[in-house]
Amino acid sequence: MSNSQNFSQSNFQAALFAIGLDRAAPEPLHVQLAARLRALVLDGTAPPGMRLPASRQFAQELSVSRATTQAALEQLVAEGYLVARRGAGTFVAEHIPHLASPLMPERIETGVARPETIRPFQHNLPDLASFPYAQWANYLASAWRRPHPDLLKAPDPFGWGPLRQAIAAHLGAWRGITCGAGQIAITSGAREAFELIARLFPAGATIQFEDPCFPPARRSLEMAGLRCILSPVDEDGFDPARIEPDVAGVVVTPSRQYPLGMALPLPRRLELLEWAKQNNTLVIEDDYDSEFRFSGQPLPAMTSLDGGERTIYVGSFSKLLSPSLRLGYLVVPERHIDGLSAAIGPVGSMASLVPQPALASFLQDGTFATHLRRMRRIYARRRAVLTEGLQTYLDGWLVPRPEPSGLNVVCGFGPRLDAVPEGDVVAAADRVGLTLQPLSPYFETGPAMKGVLLGFAHFDEATLAEGVRLLGRAITALAPARRG
Amino acid sequence: MSNSQNFSQSNFQAALFAIGLDRAAPEPLHVQLAARLRALVLDGTAPPGMRLPASRQFAQELSVSRATTQAALEQLVAEGYLVARRGAGTFVAEHIPHLASPLMPERIETGVARPETIRPFQHNLPDLASFPYAQWANYLASAWRRPHPDLLKAPDPFGWGPLRQAIAAHLGAWRGITCGAGQIAITSGAREAFELIARLFPAGATIQFEDPCFPPARRSLEMAGLRCILSPVDEDGFDPARIEPDVAGVVVTPSRQYPLGMALPLPRRLELLEWAKQNNTLVIEDDYDSEFRFSGQPLPAMTSLDGGERTIYVGSFSKLLSPSLRLGYLVVPERHIDGLSAAIGPVGSMASLVPQPALASFLQDGTFATHLRRMRRIYARRRAVLTEGLQTYLDGWLVPRPEPSGLNVVCGFGPRLDAVPEGDVVAAADRVGLTLQPLSPYFETGPAMKGVLLGFAHFDEATLAEGVRLLGRAITALAPARRG
Repeated sequence: MSNSQNFSQSNFQAALFAIGLDRAAPEPLHVQLAARLRALVLDGTAPPGMRLPASRQFAQELSVSRATTQAALEQLVAEGYLVARRGAGTFVAEHIPHLASPLMPERIETGVARPETIRPFQHNLPDLASFPYAQWANYLASAWRRPHPDLLKAPDPFGWGPLRQAIAAHLGAWRGITCGAGQIAITSGAREAFELIARLFPAGATIQFEDPCFPPARRSLEMAGLRCILSPVDEDGFDPARIEPDVAGVVVTPSRQYPLGMALPLPRRLELLEWAKQNNTLVIEDDYDSEFRFSGQPLPAMTSLDGGERTIYVGSFSKLLSPSLRLGYLVVPERHIDGLSAAIGPVGSMASLVPQPALASFLQDGTFATHLRRMRRIYARRRAVLTEGLQTYLDGWLVPRPEPSGLNVVCGFGPRLDAVPEGDVVAAADRVGLTLQPLSPYFETGPAMKGVLLGFAHFDEATLAEGVRLLGRAITALAPARRG
Repeated sequence: MSNSQNFSQSNFQAALFAIGLDRAAPEPLHVQLAARLRALVLDGTAPPGMRLPASRQFAQELSVSRATTQAALEQLVAEGYLVARRGAGTFVAEHIPHLASPLMPERIETGVARPETIRPFQHNLPDLASFPYAQWANYLASAWRRPHPDLLKAPDPFGWGPLRQAIAAHLGAWRGITCGAGQIAITSGAREAFELIARLFPAGATIQFEDPCFPPARRSLEMAGLRCILSPVDEDGFDPARIEPDVAGVVVTPSRQYPLGMALPLPRRLELLEWAKQNNTLVIEDDYDSEFRFSGQPLPAMTSLDGGERTIYVGSFSKLLSPSLRLGYLVVPERHIDGLSAAIGPVGSMASLVPQPALASFLQDGTFATHLRRMRRIYARRRAVLTEGLQTYLDGWLVPRPEPSGLNVVCGFGPRLDAVPEGDVVAAADRVGLTLQPLSPYFETGPAMKGVLLGFAHFDEATLAEGVRLLGRAITALAPARRG
């Protein structure tokens, strides 16, 4: 054992034996202990591969029963934080499932705690103030004042028929997808869409994701018992050449890689579809905000390329209208309609019927398309204000990626932030009332890209201009000595 | 240039110049043009490397503006179908792997399968026609026409605050429960409530259910990795003496055993709570329709007995108002609020925000309580019509259980159906257009009780009277020989 290993081992033991448990607290001692151990693993005090003390010694040091230490260790083994090797002891796992554990809060999407108010540059938020509420209120009222008789029947498990027809028409016009309403099921959002998709695959099937990826999608599949593997994206996004053998499905974000933003080039899209055809399997296209492209038309969905024969398309209204709607949908190939029906079950999805007829009217009468086009103009201006501000105040510090799309600007770290940890940049922004989403927590297999997401869509131009000025001051103050 | 290249070039030009655009179509001309060009590339008419005509010439041939051809060509360059080489022109991209020519699926007009009509005596359905839609429509419209500023902020993961306050008040008045709004989280229904509850227990923990029980609750826990065991109920419902060692939680339906209907006697309730206290664990009270008791007041919830210290209460608006709302909630002891917060995550539950402010107004202004009282009167009469009909037409065949509550009448088989399989009774009803829910599929461990559920709440008195007359004819015809 080297000195540095010795050091961290004794460091670790000191941290372990310093754990204080509260006998007066309502949580049982083993729950408290498991929580403290989990935190030590997550904050790196207990590095991968580190051996834990035997449960008997551990119990003595903490003055608790051996049953307590055993229960805590077993819990963390079950959760995947620790690994028990027969005869050798218990070790910190090499691969920490901190994104997958259902017992942990969804840390990655917000960091520590969600602020009460929305601060610039919170990511992934559309502009909620520009929503055409008056029209929306009229549609809600007219749908429910004298509801259509079908609204009083047993609800269709796939969702409100006219909404599904309207979505099919929208997909044709905006995403190049030809599909029938019968292939569409309304869900309470992408999370539930992925839960349903999971049931279309055999238990234990392997699904390959991009690294980085959208963690809730992956979590939904893992919680449903699928095995998820990741392969690092390159400058063009997902590389079909990296698909592993025995993969039963691939989840990609071809229109706008999540979270990095690049579009998957056509040859790779075709290669992916060819792979799915050769292997008689499916590609899942997660398409979350690509209606918002600020130069040219939105790129057609990958699903449009093969007539939807080999793709499941996942769409959502969270980023196009509002996350509060809790409405999304998925489109499956015709031959999978029965499977989807079995996955949904007779009770239907968790999507409320209340907004569905109003949303259907919204789509049918063109209000939705008008809203999208209007928001595209507004967002394009907001994006320009942000990128111009980044150029003015943070040139050489933050390097925005070029994609003219989405709700966020993705920034890598420039040479002047080379030696600065991502966390310092996020903390500096936080101190001046700004929210940055760090990029590196999204990465898992390869080396992480240092960077931040800056949401712009939710904030007006004055707020963005002032925010980026403040951000400039906060970040450039980070390394004054080195800049002289 | 070889002859064959010459040939395909001229072939290609002919195809290009034959492109017809529809000026009356809703899609702009450049979008139509891009779609036609894309198809020519994909079907091989425009082979890799082929040069496209200059945008000016192309525009002249098609009789469109140059801006139209330019926009279409730029779009396809962005998508990767075409490559622009400065000074040389625009070419079909070299690297398009061959994909089987995408079959433009003859437009799938599967349409949308019509929801099945609801037949008597489908179970668990409230009366959807008596819902006060006009008032509901007004509340929806006024909530969203000029939305409260908090509705435009990042939504509270626990749900809309005023709704949680209104639920706390309702629980105090109707269920005897004293709790704060902070202990309440809005969900998309009981299914999601149980998914969240699962995360309050360690992975692999054992939860004990009644047998028979509500299968979706059990499934939610099992899918989240908990172990569920069952113990048979007796005439009084769940027997706390049957709780197994190492059980981490118990799920019961004390107000109205699901599906049998009996109420859990007070001594057993107290015994259960004492067990939870002794073992420092929790009882989950699933309370789904007990506001509908037609004689006396609703029994107070078990949660009211211990101040909610040891109980998680699960409620839903599915049976009180409409399953289409997809709104339910759970109430946790104060010390579990943080745990629940971690389980819900920052994104919040799958419950749509759209109906929540309207439902809050509904509860606050007394419309909800008035509706419940009105429905209680209506349901009491409907139940009476059904039980009188059972007495008249099926005495000795179907034996209704006595509980004056709920949306369904639970019937055991009388002596005249002794030898008749449940399936024969269900099939006989089905042949005359009636839906019966058999009881035995709910049972798992012990001998199943033969019987059927008859929903009455959804159907008017005339329908019920005629339905039970028909049912009488259908069932009594099942064993004429033995009776002759």
